[in-house]
Amino acid sequence: MKKLSGRVTLPSEENFLNETKELLSRWGADALRDSDGTKLDKEIKQLNAKIYTTYFVARSHNEFAEQHPEEIQQLYLMSQYHMATGTKLEVTFMKGYFDEQIEPDYVHDPKKWWEVIDRTTGEVVNPDSWEVNQAENQLVIHQAQPWHEYTVSFLAYMKWDPTQMYNHMTNDWGDKPHEIPFDARQPYSNQFIKDYLVKWLKENPDTDVVRFTTFFYHFTLIFNHLGKEKFVDWFGYGASVSVAALQAFEKEKGYSLRPEDIVDQGYYNTTFRVPSTAYLDYIDFIQQFVAQEVKELVEMVHDSGKEAMMFLGDNWIGTEPYGNYFKDTDMDAVVGSVGDGTTLRIISDIPHVAYTEGRLLPYFFPDTFYEGNDPVIEANEIWLSARRAMMRKPLDRIGYGGYLSLAYKFPAFVDYVEHITEEFREIYDKIKGVKPYTGIKVAILNAWGQLRSWQAHTVAHGKWYKQTYSYYGILEALSGSNAEVTFLSFDDVIHHGIPDDIDVIINAGDAGTAFSGGEIWKESVLTEKLREWIYHGGGFIGIGEPSAYHHEGRYFQLANVLGVDKELGFSLSTNKYFTDTADSHFITDDTKVFHFGEGIKNIYALEQQTTILGQNDDGIYLASSPFGSGRSVYMAGLPYSHENTRLFMRALFFAAHKERELKKWYASNIHCEVHAYLEINMYAVVNNSMETQTTNVYVGTGIEHVVTLGPSEIIWEVCKDGR
Amino acid sequence: MKKLSGRVTLPSEENFLNETKELLSRWGADALRDSDGTKLDKEIKQLNAKIYTTYFVARSHNEFAEQHPEEIQQLYLMSQYHMATGTKLEVTFMKGYFDEQIEPDYVHDPKKWWEVIDRTTGEVVNPDSWEVNQAENQLVIHQAQPWHEYTVSFLAYMKWDPTQMYNHMTNDWGDKPHEIPFDARQPYSNQFIKDYLVKWLKENPDTDVVRFTTFFYHFTLIFNHLGKEKFVDWFGYGASVSVAALQAFEKEKGYSLRPEDIVDQGYYNTTFRVPSTAYLDYIDFIQQFVAQEVKELVEMVHDSGKEAMMFLGDNWIGTEPYGNYFKDTDMDAVVGSVGDGTTLRIISDIPHVAYTEGRLLPYFFPDTFYEGNDPVIEANEIWLSARRAMMRKPLDRIGYGGYLSLAYKFPAFVDYVEHITEEFREIYDKIKGVKPYTGIKVAILNAWGQLRSWQAHTVAHGKWYKQTYSYYGILEALSGSNAEVTFLSFDDVIHHGIPDDIDVIINAGDAGTAFSGGEIWKESVLTEKLREWIYHGGGFIGIGEPSAYHHEGRYFQLANVLGVDKELGFSLSTNKYFTDTADSHFITDDTKVFHFGEGIKNIYALEQQTTILGQNDDGIYLASSPFGSGRSVYMAGLPYSHENTRLFMRALFFAAHKERELKKWYASNIHCEVHAYLEINMYAVVNNSMETQTTNVYVGTGIEHVVTLGPSEIIWEVCKDGR
Repeated sequence: MKKLSGRVTLPSEENFLNETKELLSRWGADALRDSDGTKLDKEIKQLNAKIYTTYFVARSHNEFAEQHPEEIQQLYLMSQYHMATGTKLEVTFMKGYFDEQIEPDYVHDPKKWWEVIDRTTGEVVNPDSWEVNQAENQLVIHQAQPWHEYTVSFLAYMKWDPTQMYNHMTNDWGDKPHEIPFDARQPYSNQFIKDYLVKWLKENPDTDVVRFTTFFYHFTLIFNHLGKEKFVDWFGYGASVSVAALQAFEKEKGYSLRPEDIVDQGYYNTTFRVPSTAYLDYIDFIQQFVAQEVKELVEMVHDSGKEAMMFLGDNWIGTEPYGNYFKDTDMDAVVGSVGDGTTLRIISDIPHVAYTEGRLLPYFFPDTFYEGNDPVIEANEIWLSARRAMMRKPLDRIGYGGYLSLAYKFPAFVDYVEHITEEFREIYDKIKGVKPYTGIKVAILNAWGQLRSWQAHTVAHGKWYKQTYSYYGILEALSGSNAEVTFLSFDDVIHHGIPDDIDVIINAGDAGTAFSGGEIWKESVLTEKLREWIYHGGGFIGIGEPSAYHHEGRYFQLANVLGVDKELGFSLSTNKYFTDTADSHFITDDTKVFHFGEGIKNIYALEQQTTILGQNDDGIYLASSPFGSGRSVYMAGLPYSHENTRLFMRALFFAAHKERELKKWYASNIHCEVHAYLEINMYAVVNNSMETQTTNVYVGTGIEHVVTLGPSEIIWEVCKDGR
Repeated sequence: MKKLSGRVTLPSEENFLNETKELLSRWGADALRDSDGTKLDKEIKQLNAKIYTTYFVARSHNEFAEQHPEEIQQLYLMSQYHMATGTKLEVTFMKGYFDEQIEPDYVHDPKKWWEVIDRTTGEVVNPDSWEVNQAENQLVIHQAQPWHEYTVSFLAYMKWDPTQMYNHMTNDWGDKPHEIPFDARQPYSNQFIKDYLVKWLKENPDTDVVRFTTFFYHFTLIFNHLGKEKFVDWFGYGASVSVAALQAFEKEKGYSLRPEDIVDQGYYNTTFRVPSTAYLDYIDFIQQFVAQEVKELVEMVHDSGKEAMMFLGDNWIGTEPYGNYFKDTDMDAVVGSVGDGTTLRIISDIPHVAYTEGRLLPYFFPDTFYEGNDPVIEANEIWLSARRAMMRKPLDRIGYGGYLSLAYKFPAFVDYVEHITEEFREIYDKIKGVKPYTGIKVAILNAWGQLRSWQAHTVAHGKWYKQTYSYYGILEALSGSNAEVTFLSFDDVIHHGIPDDIDVIINAGDAGTAFSGGEIWKESVLTEKLREWIYHGGGFIGIGEPSAYHHEGRYFQLANVLGVDKELGFSLSTNKYFTDTADSHFITDDTKVFHFGEGIKNIYALEQQTTILGQNDDGIYLASSPFGSGRSVYMAGLPYSHENTRLFMRALFFAAHKERELKKWYASNIHCEVHAYLEINMYAVVNNSMETQTTNVYVGTGIEHVVTLGPSEIIWEVCKDGR
């Protein structure tokens, strides 16, 4: 078979020419890139590869930024809670912030732009009754209510780019200057950004792809007074605020924002918060501005004959690729970090770009590449997860990040990447543009819908949280499965109903969060539409605390659909009769082992007709219920594992009344999956594990045969008669 | 030492004269009683013992009740939830109820007295748009909103006394007539109750004590269509409802109640619900009526030269002994079931009576007294728990229930009860009326306060619930400890502040319950008063989800006092820095083993100054924090155990800044306790375990000496110089 090449990007560095050549050849790479802190030699730039050059739009020009301190980026920050013990209260609002990053804005009148809130009552304190002592960074409230807690929401300048700050402090860069982020919305900065790009494009003829890292506003990343991370929200629009932005917002939307609309009780509208209308308006406003400005930069790049690529991360705020304005940017490509199937799908599903690229983990950094460690194990695990998703919707390119010279010291790793790149190209070559067979179509229902496709339950990209892994597993399971996945918001359902082709709707999350939905469940139009749709045959899967909002004797507002509810203590007086576990069931036919993660306590069955499939001392963790012609499944949680993925797929098919469709393009062994591509008359049997596996393989007719696969192996087969 | 006798009541039965005599003598009993289903022989009544006779006020007179079906007791009941799939909805409101117990009230106009609620919106459905089909026990809604859920709150007659129903069905009493409860508020019943008592008093000259079991209204106990318990609330005022009561309520309180005020979303105002003003008014109204009526009956008893004793249970609704009107009843005595220290204190702390009596468990019933079982073990366990409480506030009498003939078949048990009765009298003889030394005064703060003294976290009396044991342990620990205990309601604090002599306030419970407090925590006057008091040196212990109500960026409204809060998902973006566990601490000095029961997840420290004393993967379960001059302690839960009791006592002394007071009248061994009675110059060292224990005993000066105690032993010693 002809060896394929291309579709792979490598990082390179100075004084690494020969090894770079060798790896270019072995890994079949066709692009090279620099990084934050590494530069490419001239000779390297002359190799037969496209050159990506990292470009910072709104930082790394301190000579400019220092001339325009009034154009430094801004944030609204909330002070710590300060309790009054008398009528005078001094709030040291900078306490806990890092003065190398944050500086209060005294240019704009605090009386107008700041807000003091009595957090015991929620009332705003009249600005006449407080004053700011600038010398001490202190705000004094003169008529405080004793024993109430107060916070100050203050406007501040963010004078150090968070990513550079992180790298600087992590790598002990000493007196290397702190890069000052400037604001594209401000006149001088806006002009500078454009002028500089024109100049830079001319000065960098070797660059083929301008790798924007990224544009204007960094996701919210704030450090504390000890220089340690204090607040991180990968979706945070915090650093996009400015007086100019607030004024423009008022002009455009017809009302002004309060500081509290941004500060949000100190939660800063994280993606776990049910978004307020004001916040949705604000992010729409920022997205629109960013898209317009990005479009201009992209045009310049195009005019210079180069491509524009955006890194999904760092300063990506306002460019959300599933938002309404991303298509306007004319971006050529998006690149992002890929550590599993979900993060791969974030990238590979992005619409409106010519190509997507995933920067595969692990990074070539000393935390993985140290003596005695075998980076192949981690690389293999990540590749198996990512490959599942690749089989459904492939990236157009893959790449790596970090120090190539470090990876080079691990020959087994170099061999393994050679295998990965080869396998990637083989997959891509076969299935790019081919719609894989899907047995089922699911919609994930939460407050964010399509805007945050594949991004639910994420705090910081790729980071594990105890409170999120039990839900993140849903996305990970789906990312590489035989299901078409869409994302619906509550507003979509309320205003546009449920698309006809959906088989199963999933609502998953902790009570009160944007993912479960919170108070929206009191909206009768939402529950009406869902009940009607399910009653007439739809499937509904609730995970964790679905539809949770305590109202009129129900905690789960869809309790009658789910057949279960959660005991809050109010109905302890009511006997719980229905406690028998079903002996066997379609959903649990392949595996009895179900790890539901963090779990939810005190779930009980409401009705005789609820089928309990799993329970322990803490309550039910798996159940199913009929509802009219429809069906529901309740699960306490779904961390990612092969067992859970299988269980979940069976639950989806059951909820959709598609039990008879399950064993088409299906592997009996839970560590294996079958992906079929009927347009090209092929299917792949994939071993998702690092051990040899034997499985029955069911083709499209449901006829089975036995296949044995080596560790991580893919076997491609030709469909007979297209089935 | 002279053997004491008396203060013990035995159940007896027919044909059991000689054995009764023997047990009277061996157990030193001075009173005999019949039971529901047993009668005393004439000869037995002539023994040298007071005779208690069980008396039912509002049942067991079917000849009367059947003549006045309109005076049968009533309930408001809620139907199951019925979802409309079109505009016409048929609600089979009796579904799930037991037609031998419940009959809908068609005498009073359903249009006036019933309520149909759209539970999707919470709106009441206009009575014009529904009608009742009496023949089918069905209510038809004509203009239902499709996909909304509806319930019907209907007035019903309760035609079978719940206790007799329970006994009848449990013991297969076959065609024995169902006792019909009649309503003391109704004219004929009221007259009958009084006339019959007059007659009965005359006809029962041998009776010394009329043991009312109890008065008018049974706690709510509803069975389902299969004749199994459906709803049980030991505090439930459900069966006190009637049209007459509702009309009298309106006259007295100046407003009318809605059915929903009673039905309460199907929760029926269980004690876990934060009580509404309407419900508090209603129970006040019922208590007042019951007290007036009871007073009349008690007067008749007194006029006949007998004593009136009330059984705390069954038909006790309206007689709550810690309520405002109990003192008006002139009751001589209260008897109640005692299974541990908490249930003992419910009885022994009752004010305004001449004496109290505890009916010790186990009952002499076949569930304990069967061949091969040793009832001594259970009796010993119960006695050890009860005895702890007895050492603090003794009952005046103890007794037993069930079949004496059954107990008689277990000679070791007979011996053991001889020991218990002897030990009880010894304790009583020494300490009755003597104030025990207390090192600390605590107040338990919840929505109920004094009214439900020692009754927090109870669903059905003496019954274990998974959702309650982690809080019930607080009461059990305190019931026999060196602490004075009072009960405060939120309203007490809001309107009257915190009594001067309190050392530590405890708030404990699951979020939203009456015990934690729910929305009351938004009342700034509550948090102001608590913060002020703690700041100036008070102690505060929060257990479970204390002060929980999500508001203005805090979940625990006293988070700044507690130094901890609960992560709800909204602040995952905020780093949690303070994660070090303290190596050692005053609170954990005696035991490192802490079982916090059900636990609360995701508790984290807010401040550097929070001292974490225990945490696991789920979060912090034990912590302490300074607050001004005061201190707080957080615990995730406190099931009863000797270890937890010690830990809790240390936490109380620590919170109160009384560390130096701890080792006075104190045992180093956690299975032992020391109770001092300075007025009589004595102290007791008690072994609360069934094993031999050696302990250091600290007397009032803090000087220690070593004592070894046999299993369950008490050693009485004389104080030297009153210390």
